[in-house]
Amino acid sequence: MKIRVIAPVILEGPTPPSVQQFARMARPDCEVEVVFLDRGPASIESEYEEALAAPDTIAKAKEGEETGADAIVVDCMLDPGLEAARERVSIPVVGPAQVSMHMAAMLSHRFSIVTVVSRLISPFYKLARTYGVSDYLGSVRAIEVPVLELERDQQATVTPLVEQASRAIEEDGSQAIVFGCTGMAGLARAVEDGLRARGYAVPVIDPGVAALKTAEVLVDLRLAHSKLAYPIPPVKALLGYPQL
Amino acid sequence: MKIRVIAPVILEGPTPPSVQQFARMARPDCEVEVVFLDRGPASIESEYEEALAAPDTIAKAKEGEETGADAIVVDCMLDPGLEAARERVSIPVVGPAQVSMHMAAMLSHRFSIVTVVSRLISPFYKLARTYGVSDYLGSVRAIEVPVLELERDQQATVTPLVEQASRAIEEDGSQAIVFGCTGMAGLARAVEDGLRARGYAVPVIDPGVAALKTAEVLVDLRLAHSKLAYPIPPVKALLGYPQL
Amino acid sequence: MKIRVIAPVILEGPTPPSVQQFARMARPDCEVEVVFLDRGPASIESEYEEALAAPDTIAKAKEGEETGADAIVVDCMLDPGLEAARERVSIPVVGPAQVSMHMAAMLSHRFSIVTVVSRLISPFYKLARTYGVSDYLGSVRAIEVPVLELERDQQATVTPLVEQASRAIEEDGSQAIVFGCTGMAGLARAVEDGLRARGYAVPVIDPGVAALKTAEVLVDLRLAHSKLAYPIPPVKALLGYPQL
Amino acid sequence: MKIRVIAPVILEGPTPPSVQQFARMARPDCEVEVVFLDRGPASIESEYEEALAAPDTIAKAKEGEETGADAIVVDCMLDPGLEAARERVSIPVVGPAQVSMHMAAMLSHRFSIVTVVSRLISPFYKLARTYGVSDYLGSVRAIEVPVLELERDQQATVTPLVEQASRAIEEDGSQAIVFGCTGMAGLARAVEDGLRARGYAVPVIDPGVAALKTAEVLVDLRLAHSKLAYPIPPVKALLGYPQL
Amino acid sequence: MKIRVIAPVILEGPTPPSVQQFARMARPDCEVEVVFLDRGPASIESEYEEALAAPDTIAKAKEGEETGADAIVVDCMLDPGLEAARERVSIPVVGPAQVSMHMAAMLSHRFSIVTVVSRLISPFYKLARTYGVSDYLGSVRAIEVPVLELERDQQATVTPLVEQASRAIEEDGSQAIVFGCTGMAGLARAVEDGLRARGYAVPVIDPGVAALKTAEVLVDLRLAHSKLAYPIPPVKALLGYPQL
Amino acid sequence: MKIRVIAPVILEGPTPPSVQQFARMARPDCEVEVVFLDRGPASIESEYEEALAAPDTIAKAKEGEETGADAIVVDCMLDPGLEAARERVSIPVVGPAQVSMHMAAMLSHRFSIVTVVSRLISPFYKLARTYGVSDYLGSVRAIEVPVLELERDQQATVTPLVEQASRAIEEDGSQAIVFGCTGMAGLARAVEDGLRARGYAVPVIDPGVAALKTAEVLVDLRLAHSKLAYPIPPVKALLGYPQL
Repeated sequence: MKIRVIAPVILEGPTPPSVQQFARMARPDCEVEVVFLDRGPASIESEYEEALAAPDTIAKAKEGEETGADAIVVDCMLDPGLEAARERVSIPVVGPAQVSMHMAAMLSHRFSIVTVVSRLISPFYKLARTYGVSDYLGSVRAIEVPVLELERDQQATVTPLVEQASRAIEEDGSQAIVFGCTGMAGLARAVEDGLRARGYAVPVIDPGVAALKTAEVLVDLRLAHSKLAYPIPPVKALLGYPQL
Repeated sequence: MKIRVIAPVILEGPTPPSVQQFARMARPDCEVEVVFLDRGPASIESEYEEALAAPDTIAKAKEGEETGADAIVVDCMLDPGLEAARERVSIPVVGPAQVSMHMAAMLSHRFSIVTVVSRLISPFYKLARTYGVSDYLGSVRAIEVPVLELERDQQATVTPLVEQASRAIEEDGSQAIVFGCTGMAGLARAVEDGLRARGYAVPVIDPGVAALKTAEVLVDLRLAHSKLAYPIPPVKALLGYPQL
Repeated sequence: MKIRVIAPVILEGPTPPSVQQFARMARPDCEVEVVFLDRGPASIESEYEEALAAPDTIAKAKEGEETGADAIVVDCMLDPGLEAARERVSIPVVGPAQVSMHMAAMLSHRFSIVTVVSRLISPFYKLARTYGVSDYLGSVRAIEVPVLELERDQQATVTPLVEQASRAIEEDGSQAIVFGCTGMAGLARAVEDGLRARGYAVPVIDPGVAALKTAEVLVDLRLAHSKLAYPIPPVKALLGYPQL
Repeated sequence: MKIRVIAPVILEGPTPPSVQQFARMARPDCEVEVVFLDRGPASIESEYEEALAAPDTIAKAKEGEETGADAIVVDCMLDPGLEAARERVSIPVVGPAQVSMHMAAMLSHRFSIVTVVSRLISPFYKLARTYGVSDYLGSVRAIEVPVLELERDQQATVTPLVEQASRAIEEDGSQAIVFGCTGMAGLARAVEDGLRARGYAVPVIDPGVAALKTAEVLVDLRLAHSKLAYPIPPVKALLGYPQL
Repeated sequence: MKIRVIAPVILEGPTPPSVQQFARMARPDCEVEVVFLDRGPASIESEYEEALAAPDTIAKAKEGEETGADAIVVDCMLDPGLEAARERVSIPVVGPAQVSMHMAAMLSHRFSIVTVVSRLISPFYKLARTYGVSDYLGSVRAIEVPVLELERDQQATVTPLVEQASRAIEEDGSQAIVFGCTGMAGLARAVEDGLRARGYAVPVIDPGVAALKTAEVLVDLRLAHSKLAYPIPPVKALLGYPQL
Repeated sequence: MKIRVIAPVILEGPTPPSVQQFARMARPDCEVEVVFLDRGPASIESEYEEALAAPDTIAKAKEGEETGADAIVVDCMLDPGLEAARERVSIPVVGPAQVSMHMAAMLSHRFSIVTVVSRLISPFYKLARTYGVSDYLGSVRAIEVPVLELERDQQATVTPLVEQASRAIEEDGSQAIVFGCTGMAGLARAVEDGLRARGYAVPVIDPGVAALKTAEVLVDLRLAHSKLAYPIPPVKALLGYPQL
């Protein structure tokens, strides 16, 4: 199978290590195709940037379907364009936030999201309501490291991630941790180990990878989003964007 | 005060009658400035079109703030770009869906949305969850008239609107009606009369106008969305969109 | 238009400054008529006093409708008699608690109520459930100043209001503040400034004024509560109260 | 023990049969004292009448506590003055609506309320939200027989009660029935039999009697409502009502 | 009436004091019959032990029905086998967790459970969701005393119970306390007194006794769980357990 | 990897076709080991049978962990012993009901469960509450074919499954279908085709297979349930069951 991973940002330097995790984590029978945006922001740390990333994400999803992809993964924890893209294509479109929050709700009774910067706390409260998992969300915490800085030195964030995750467990009663940024991909094991060293045996969910593996499963099961829920949009006049 | 109404679509002919309602309904001390998009779809009947409308809506909101508007109204029942625009500006940004659903929850114990086409039913279920009013949403019904057709002959839709609203009352137990498209602006009174003729004294909420009036009030009260909830996005590299 | 503000208390001295805010905040085309109760408590700080205030509040609402009022505002944060009065009249009856909690849910993802005395914390938990906004209510905090004392020296409460609002932001994660007593009317700006001085740009909602402005809008829109939700009560034998 | 049952209405003729059920259903060691109101409506079929019944209900509760009652039962399915009365007294005050809805939620996964007139449907939707049991409430149905007519010929209502209860089971998926009026007291067995004759073995809850038996239990257990939740109101100027 | 109390554990020594409370608290007209399990764990402090206790609990419930019991009480705060047993019998089967959580939701706006060991915190979060009372559950706290140790010296736990209950009131905003283990039966009064000495007048609910008294009431009212909700299981091949 | 599938029933004849689906659907690198119970019912169509199946299911899970399994799948839509087994082992234990309901909530805005017999409707309402997905559950419908009959002639159930699924879409507004029995494994494609022939493009989720694929993913991701949520039970006296 072929899964297209859309990193919903423009690329300004080398491929970030988090994006490289996808090929590493995919099954042998799964070809991962990573694409970046032509139009959009360099990173997504706001609903504003999410909105600017959505149109080209949708176009890349449509292009993926047309060029033989079996599923789409949107590589950002704000799930930019997720539901709009589902309308445009029939293959599964999978978002890290939706997948990881539901997974955490299955593995625990209360989970926390640990994200990059505190200005992302609000969007996660909203997404939890949108996805129907508010009752499980114990807290959202931030390590106060911007995405692009995180990508420059991932390892430097392990210590603050363990620190905030520990506080989520101790102060907020959480029993599972979800990374609040797909740029943290590859760090789950280290954070899990750090927590175990403090006596906490809790799952640490890497949302981008979780989305990839869920996409593989949906392809296996020949399942996709309901087209009653996400019907094909009508064709009509459109300026500034390609007709898909 | 000056309120900028952003009709989040490109305009291909004369200004639709629904848009003309804003100037008619504004207070004497309120100047309404209507702008259309340069980039986007001709109408919004999907989350896909909502996504394509959002970037220029945000830009027009920012432009509005810079040119002296006191508040922004986004004239579409999917609230395109609402929360992203709130991040970019400090003046109130008001969305018809959010305002009208909360208003209906205040005036009744259960309400229905009557929209244009049944493919819009799903997005309203999602928005009701996002805005926290799912418990009040009795049903979403459609008259199966596309937006552009609606705009060509608004009056023709009164009968099917009354019909679907009546069924919402009788079959779904609803006690208030919210129009599921701002293109229906100006029809609330006629539909209310039609329902009264059938024995139902229920409020019929025109969401675009309700958003305008709420914007006036927020300006009066010098209130806006919380900047803790909607902080200013960071500046960073961006392709395909103007730096705002 | 004419809006009747019912201060659901008996008046024992000069008109409190909070009540004077209504005339100040009304639109030029809106005549505000303030009435006090003939029967009821001197202030409302319990569900007990709310219950004693309700009957005459309803009578004053009915009288207002009969003497040409276009809408009713009940000037108390416990919304005494709100839904009962809606049954008796067809003009809009607006309550500060309902309006301000829904408004805060639209402007933020989590809000706190800061009220006069801690014995009012419980009623607000109940009202939040009744009005369907519990998921947004981060906390209820009190400054421990009784209503009548507050009215004697409003300015003295600004400092404790800022203090409790700050703690709501810092400790409870709230992003917007609702005054938990309409006696605080007129202080929103000062508290907002105090919070901004501490680095918090959050809306501070004055519920009585918010109710007045919402009443103006409902009159403009010719909207009222659903009579399916609030039907006219039957006429029957009644002792101790006037037949309305 | 002594339990005071407050029938929150004025009495215009003989004691209704529903009220006589209390003495019949009380335990041998429980003395039931029934009191009617001096001020209030002849029956309660609206939130308006509920509001007019509340003040004297509270006074009778206080009087009951002072004259040795161990608990109070408010004999009306709108629970008039329930929470206000709890503030005034320390002995348990029990409401039929609260008790019966929670009981139905314990005995089934979905229940319906069958009430007297359809104008009472809305208040029950509100009470279910207030009491936190909305998710269990399958429907509210009415037999369209006013309270006072019901009291004149209780037996005549068995057939329509069975009919509406059957439809609640068949059409709304309900598994338990709650009477939506305490005036139906004494009919539960007949309705249960009627349903069993149609093949439905479901509990039919008589809310007034359920409240009485719950009051007995609370006295046994020496439990009452939390005074942190329902603190004693402050003493202050009051017109038109006795100082309690 | 005869109520069978099933202590869903094997008995290894003398009858624990908590079990003796049932006979003490039953009404004079109520014969309490206590039975222990033949197969199961010595105490229940996990969902695992709950699962091992369930089959014999169901068998003892069926045996109870066949030998003339009018109702069943399962004497454990995890409600082992509660809903399965309801399928097997037609007499009421009452669980302490379900009864006490609903009772606390009626007596307060927020309650805490204080249990034996912190490993039981999670099951209560799950049970609160299952029983629909999550919105009322302020916290679950533990005194860190295992069940069997608790039974050896009940009095030693009063001090830590008061301590944790106080913290639930002060730190978690709770207004009522539910014991999180039926082994604490008989201590409610002492804990209530301890809290009152600290200034907190809150109900302390002993869940086992509350279940017994609720069972008495259900028998009085001739009510039981809905057989539409809990239908009789079909007969089929079965190994390792008796056919009931 | 090796995944142990526990069919939580005793086997009385040949392996049912539904169970054979696991080996067929597993990845090449995944060895599926199917075990049946030594003690338990022949099929599970009640909470009673679920309770009898749980103890040996837990034992088989523990045995699986000790003999090298990487994950456990419980092959029954009532998830017997799921959370208890999670306490006993550290490898992932996956339940079809939990996985399929969350998956349906991710692929649609409202889903229906179509199960074997109507007596299973109630347990699914309860499980939806327990798993936090009630808001997404549109309805539970039954084809009225018992499990063992279903296993004898799976194909005969396709037509009634399509029929009930169609009614769920048309009458209940559902957009996705979840099989309410793992005995239907292998029929999802046929039902999906049948629905497509009626014009409905909706996902049909086979819960057993979905659980298997989710187990594979959890193993890949080295994730398991939180041990803070599901701690190891203490060791103590136990009769009638082996010490695990």
